[in-house]
Amino acid sequence: MSQFVRPNIRAMTGYTPGEQPQGGGIVKLNTNENPYPPSPRAFEAMIEVLRSDRLRKYPDPLGRAFRQTAGMLYGVDPDGILIGNGSDDILTILTRAFVPEGGLIVSPTPSYLLYATLADIQGARFEGIPFADDWQLPSPWPWRSAHLTLVANPNSPSGTVVSNASLERLANELDGPLIVDEAYADFADANAIGLTRLPNVIVTRTLSKSYALAGLRFGFAITSPATVRELVKVKDSYNCDALSLAGAQAALEDQDYLLQIRAKIIATRTRMTGELRKLDFDVLPSQANFVWATCMKRPAEPIFEELKRRNILVRYMNYAGFGDGLRISVGSDAEIDRLLEELKKLV
Amino acid sequence: MSQFVRPNIRAMTGYTPGEQPQGGGIVKLNTNENPYPPSPRAFEAMIEVLRSDRLRKYPDPLGRAFRQTAGMLYGVDPDGILIGNGSDDILTILTRAFVPEGGLIVSPTPSYLLYATLADIQGARFEGIPFADDWQLPSPWPWRSAHLTLVANPNSPSGTVVSNASLERLANELDGPLIVDEAYADFADANAIGLTRLPNVIVTRTLSKSYALAGLRFGFAITSPATVRELVKVKDSYNCDALSLAGAQAALEDQDYLLQIRAKIIATRTRMTGELRKLDFDVLPSQANFVWATCMKRPAEPIFEELKRRNILVRYMNYAGFGDGLRISVGSDAEIDRLLEELKKLV
Repeated sequence: MSQFVRPNIRAMTGYTPGEQPQGGGIVKLNTNENPYPPSPRAFEAMIEVLRSDRLRKYPDPLGRAFRQTAGMLYGVDPDGILIGNGSDDILTILTRAFVPEGGLIVSPTPSYLLYATLADIQGARFEGIPFADDWQLPSPWPWRSAHLTLVANPNSPSGTVVSNASLERLANELDGPLIVDEAYADFADANAIGLTRLPNVIVTRTLSKSYALAGLRFGFAITSPATVRELVKVKDSYNCDALSLAGAQAALEDQDYLLQIRAKIIATRTRMTGELRKLDFDVLPSQANFVWATCMKRPAEPIFEELKRRNILVRYMNYAGFGDGLRISVGSDAEIDRLLEELKKLV
Repeated sequence: MSQFVRPNIRAMTGYTPGEQPQGGGIVKLNTNENPYPPSPRAFEAMIEVLRSDRLRKYPDPLGRAFRQTAGMLYGVDPDGILIGNGSDDILTILTRAFVPEGGLIVSPTPSYLLYATLADIQGARFEGIPFADDWQLPSPWPWRSAHLTLVANPNSPSGTVVSNASLERLANELDGPLIVDEAYADFADANAIGLTRLPNVIVTRTLSKSYALAGLRFGFAITSPATVRELVKVKDSYNCDALSLAGAQAALEDQDYLLQIRAKIIATRTRMTGELRKLDFDVLPSQANFVWATCMKRPAEPIFEELKRRNILVRYMNYAGFGDGLRISVGSDAEIDRLLEELKKLV
């Protein structure tokens, strides 16, 4: 059968997600999950779906109830919201809507590795533009007419942000859509939702990080209603299930809870940044729920391996032409204490 | 923004799923949902996930526990199973893996309308080959080298089946993959899983129909492990959430329950087929959980409209060059009694 697979797919190695050990006993700081549970209101909403007659029926293809809630929360038109099975689904829909075979996807680099994979799957080309010093966007931007330009903000693995003024300048320079991937924006000081008033800006969000619902798979995009009408043609009709729609809506409705766990994560982030620096790591100031730690004195990979041996999983990342480091999720205080304790023995 | 959308997407009208009214009080016989609830074991498994720590973490990208169960049940290698967010997700993955822009998707017609939409989204061409008399495959098959050949078996809207011998002959004639879409196979006398020993056959399944889990979104494909390794590159890493993985696995483990509700649906199907024929409808012998009713004496569309006015939703379908009819899902006995009662007044 493999001779029938498209050559671009055959040639791919495929995106490798962070390890997801399904057992317990591991301090898991490798995929930026939230150390705190989701809002109790999300659980209640899902239990209610399970108790109802709704699971045997198809869900609402457009997620209208969710869109009402999200539109109200963010002050945008509900018809300008696209629902997705995680923000990966949203990014896939955007790729299929805008990027032809042989097209071009551009992103600053180092950033989310999935962007290059999306280009591979679509049979398109990917160009990474190195970030300027201090992790800012180069200006002028060298690729104005990409089919899709993606900026993760806050960026992974760096945790750094670019300002809305920079994003607006980029949007104006581009002759194509600008996707601001705000997977981590709830941990930052600002967001770009206001920029969706520009004709070519789409903001994407996930409930996997700040809302602690990685296992539920829910994300969404904010843009104009006219663009959503085009994107809906590309998505699977029923891309979001009845449980995730209800859980996501309830989670968004519980902003008090979000602010509580956000505050705890930011406090832990500040503390772990200071402690890691004391251990001679270079740690960028992060506005996400992870930090990017590099170490001039010793290679990062053996530290990753040693931590793994001690049941602490962090993400080792090595970018061609850039260098390597450890991306460490902000866990609970106890998890970070455990990490720091082991690191003290190692370095 | 719409000037940046690919021309093939702009030109599409998009797939229109059957209406999904979210309120109650409607006899819903339009999208082949199951009138009975899912297995209690599926509920228990999902409640257990909700009570655990699993929702804040990413799910298993490959769904290994589900694959073990499904592999055992169907007597196939678990590594030859691909998990999907509904079988629509599976069909999307197959399209992206095998069909280049400008490629060709072929299916007998009339059949599942989504196949043509998948071609549109991919920027590919769709060719529908009219079924031969008695809803069998034409032989010889006119398009041997399509990038994807899809046969829904049982077929929608007809509810008819083609034999495994016909499918095997077709698979041998084709110079490309043959997808046997078995969304309704649990209601039929046979299935094509045995044909996945052939090098170019992929069988797809959904839990939306026989397992009464349309709201959960879960489907899967059965083929060779080597093909699954290619398909995994194309799917979103976490395309199935923790709840659907657990619910789907538990549903498959409860074969006694499946057989019970299957028997009830088949009994109702037999009864409604007879009663509809008494009302002068032509009804094909169905092996699915719906019947295809046409009426020589009067046009189908006004009957659909009249039923809708009386809060009974069936699916009116009109295929260019073929004709129209009503596809009516097998509901509960009470629902079918209600339908028959209203039809008696109408015809």
